[in-house]
Amino acid sequence: TKDHFIVDDFTGEEYAGHHFIIDIWGFDTSLRDFDFDRILSKASEIANAKKLYSHVHKFNDGGLSGVAVLEESHISFHTWIQREYVAFDIFMCGDTKPELAVEYIKKELKAKKSKVKIFKRGQYE
Amino acid sequence: TKDHFIVDDFTGEEYAGHHFIIDIWGFDTSLRDFDFDRILSKASEIANAKKLYSHVHKFNDGGLSGVAVLEESHISFHTWIQREYVAFDIFMCGDTKPELAVEYIKKELKAKKSKVKIFKRGQYE
Repeated sequence: TKDHFIVDDFTGEEYAGHHFIIDIWGFDTSLRDFDFDRILSKASEIANAKKLYSHVHKFNDGGLSGVAVLEESHISFHTWIQREYVAFDIFMCGDTKPELAVEYIKKELKAKKSKVKIFKRGQYE
Repeated sequence: TKDHFIVDDFTGEEYAGHHFIIDIWGFDTSLRDFDFDRILSKASEIANAKKLYSHVHKFNDGGLSGVAVLEESHISFHTWIQREYVAFDIFMCGDTKPELAVEYIKKELKAKKSKVKIFKRGQYE
């Protein structure tokens, strides 16, 4: 629709978009070695989303928190260096393929284990 | 713990924090009338989190997308003005009370309907 809600022609179901909650562990190299700002850009592009804005904050222990505001919602991530853990969430509305962003991120980080949960947002019942 | 993971002394369960996915509908006034940057600040404060950074993007149709990077992870929101719908997500680790932020937001917006889902992030199984 014009406001980027998704309407399923078959079921009549309406929702804002898909929200992916992604936990990722274990990488071939330290989490310090990745360029997360580039990963946010590439993940957006691959999913057919447009990154409007991003910001990555570096903590004293080397951990990072980052957010990208998209034309189609957002991506966020937080790293825990010592635990080799990174928490991503990807929320995309409109004509996008967030699942491709998830696949790209797991591959790019050479993740050894991951858990993904998917939700439809904005379903009024 | 030192890296802000939560360890349950009783069960031994370890996780990064709680992630709240919040869908909210129906407000006494237009979503245009709220100061979301202030809401991000207050929500963080009430939950005992520290806002490091925030950014709110305004779309041509009056819709807003905003993110706050916290010392303890993040808050994001996206508004759909005509549908009287706003999508929030709140991820907080460490010694915080994200449920208080959720209650504050619902009250502040005078939400008529809401759905909340809660996840523990970073549980390695």
